[in-house]
Amino acid sequence: MRVQFLGTGAGTPSKQRNVSSLAIQWYQHGGQTWLLDCGEATQHQILQYPVKLGKINQIFITHLHGDHIYGLPGLLGSRSFQGGESPLRIYAPKGLQEWINVSLQISGTHLRYPLEIIEIHDGMTWSDDSFHYTVRQLEHGVPSFGFRFEEKSQSGALQVHKLQQMGIPPGPLYQQLKQGKKIQLEDGTWLNGADYLSAPVQGLRMAVIGDTRFTSAIHDLADGTDLLIHEATFRAEQEELARNFFHSTSTEAATMAKQANVKQLILNHISSRYQPDEIEQLLAEAQDIFPQTLIAYDGFSFEWDQK
Amino acid sequence: MRVQFLGTGAGTPSKQRNVSSLAIQWYQHGGQTWLLDCGEATQHQILQYPVKLGKINQIFITHLHGDHIYGLPGLLGSRSFQGGESPLRIYAPKGLQEWINVSLQISGTHLRYPLEIIEIHDGMTWSDDSFHYTVRQLEHGVPSFGFRFEEKSQSGALQVHKLQQMGIPPGPLYQQLKQGKKIQLEDGTWLNGADYLSAPVQGLRMAVIGDTRFTSAIHDLADGTDLLIHEATFRAEQEELARNFFHSTSTEAATMAKQANVKQLILNHISSRYQPDEIEQLLAEAQDIFPQTLIAYDGFSFEWDQK
Ligand SMILES: [Zn+2]
Ligand SMILES: [Zn+2]
Repeated sequence: MRVQFLGTGAGTPSKQRNVSSLAIQWYQHGGQTWLLDCGEATQHQILQYPVKLGKINQIFITHLHGDHIYGLPGLLGSRSFQGGESPLRIYAPKGLQEWINVSLQISGTHLRYPLEIIEIHDGMTWSDDSFHYTVRQLEHGVPSFGFRFEEKSQSGALQVHKLQQMGIPPGPLYQQLKQGKKIQLEDGTWLNGADYLSAPVQGLRMAVIGDTRFTSAIHDLADGTDLLIHEATFRAEQEELARNFFHSTSTEAATMAKQANVKQLILNHISSRYQPDEIEQLLAEAQDIFPQTLIAYDGFSFEWDQK
Repeated sequence: MRVQFLGTGAGTPSKQRNVSSLAIQWYQHGGQTWLLDCGEATQHQILQYPVKLGKINQIFITHLHGDHIYGLPGLLGSRSFQGGESPLRIYAPKGLQEWINVSLQISGTHLRYPLEIIEIHDGMTWSDDSFHYTVRQLEHGVPSFGFRFEEKSQSGALQVHKLQQMGIPPGPLYQQLKQGKKIQLEDGTWLNGADYLSAPVQGLRMAVIGDTRFTSAIHDLADGTDLLIHEATFRAEQEELARNFFHSTSTEAATMAKQANVKQLILNHISSRYQPDEIEQLLAEAQDIFPQTLIAYDGFSFEWDQK
């Protein structure tokens, strides 16, 4: 799994940071790619990094502020123009569907792939073959949401060497054992699949927190995750400003990561008011509370090695 | 007057060329700046060049294809965010108003300046203190328009040295002569202002042609202009493709410039299918017909020195 940060700024684009978007590439699941938010010029950023429009099968929109959605119509059109034909699903707050409809219609854009837009709400959960999804509403003045993604655990590998030592040749039996079944050999011996499987591999758990001020719903999403990506628009000293403008400070994000027993925290959505040295301080303040903290920048790529 | 090309590509952004937008800065008229089209990431391009959002007072939209308008909501929001309070007027085909309304509304964007959107149609003309404007409909499958801008001629300068030679001291008389009036001196002599004025300075005439195939309306807009900015999506050999997709070739643009007695032609809106050497050929083919031809690229700046 790889997270490619495409836009890590807040509010308006600057020369250093574009408005919000990040991509999650799941190597182990067909290379499917998800987009979290899609600020203006997200498709331009994608031109610079190893992310493929046609591989994007799901887009999650945290909220409808312009810096999180204005890149959508162009990206949807270009995905079609480049020949993308596989279905695309967008999870977004109420209102996006109407805007996308009007945007595509007035510009005469016809998508060559099926597009489905699903309205999200607080407490919503669902699953597919490989993942379990949870949505919680945050506090941002307008409806804003965070997401928890849980990769399903994968059953352990079959310990082939053990079976070979016992003189059992590869074949259909191996497949049944791999599924954990009990089988009987020709000599009457019973074998239990469970005895020949490595421990199941725990799937990755991660949470992506949209714009919000400090609120308990974040804890529910972040609880015990391997990776927490959290907005950190402001520095600690601006906690009051953050609260009034429905944003978080880097120390609030770190406190949350600590309380929720997160393994790795990445700070995101950084105000363009900060100069490079202040950004270092913003990070240092968080690391004082939660050492396993990184800060995102446009182009930052984070690789998760599943143990 | 300076034209700053911001996006000179066609259809979708590429690493070389962004989607459509150009800015016209009128030094002689308070530095007011106009935008012609506003594809996605136009505000990002503006960050790179000497164009100020707050100075933009008029935006002309040629047609509603996404590559010409998807940058508008973000640009409007950022102009406000940066403190722009002066009024902004957008001239655009029917449909833009509704889309802008929905875009600003769902994103919770409140502009701090008055925004007026005026629907354009074929044959529309109007004037303000300094300019005369003409709109003609072109041929692009969807309603697409070209614009002719005529700077009003400025009255000639008062030939002060002549008056001083005659012993007439500076004062209110000078002002009346400057306005071309007849005045009587104390000694009874009549002076005619027209005799003491240099020839009036002819204003700049220019035309910007939106996406279109070859059509006579272009001639009406381009006729006798100093500067013609014309789309040239394709090379000469792709004339049939151009016709079928409602676009122009570089040789059609050059032919039009020649027939309409244009002084300077700039080719714009170049397909991303072309490699650098093909772009040189696209330009050379046009120059064979009309030598005073240039080709735009992102960042290209064209200064017009009024004689
Ligand atoms: Zn927001
Ligand atoms: Zn077009």
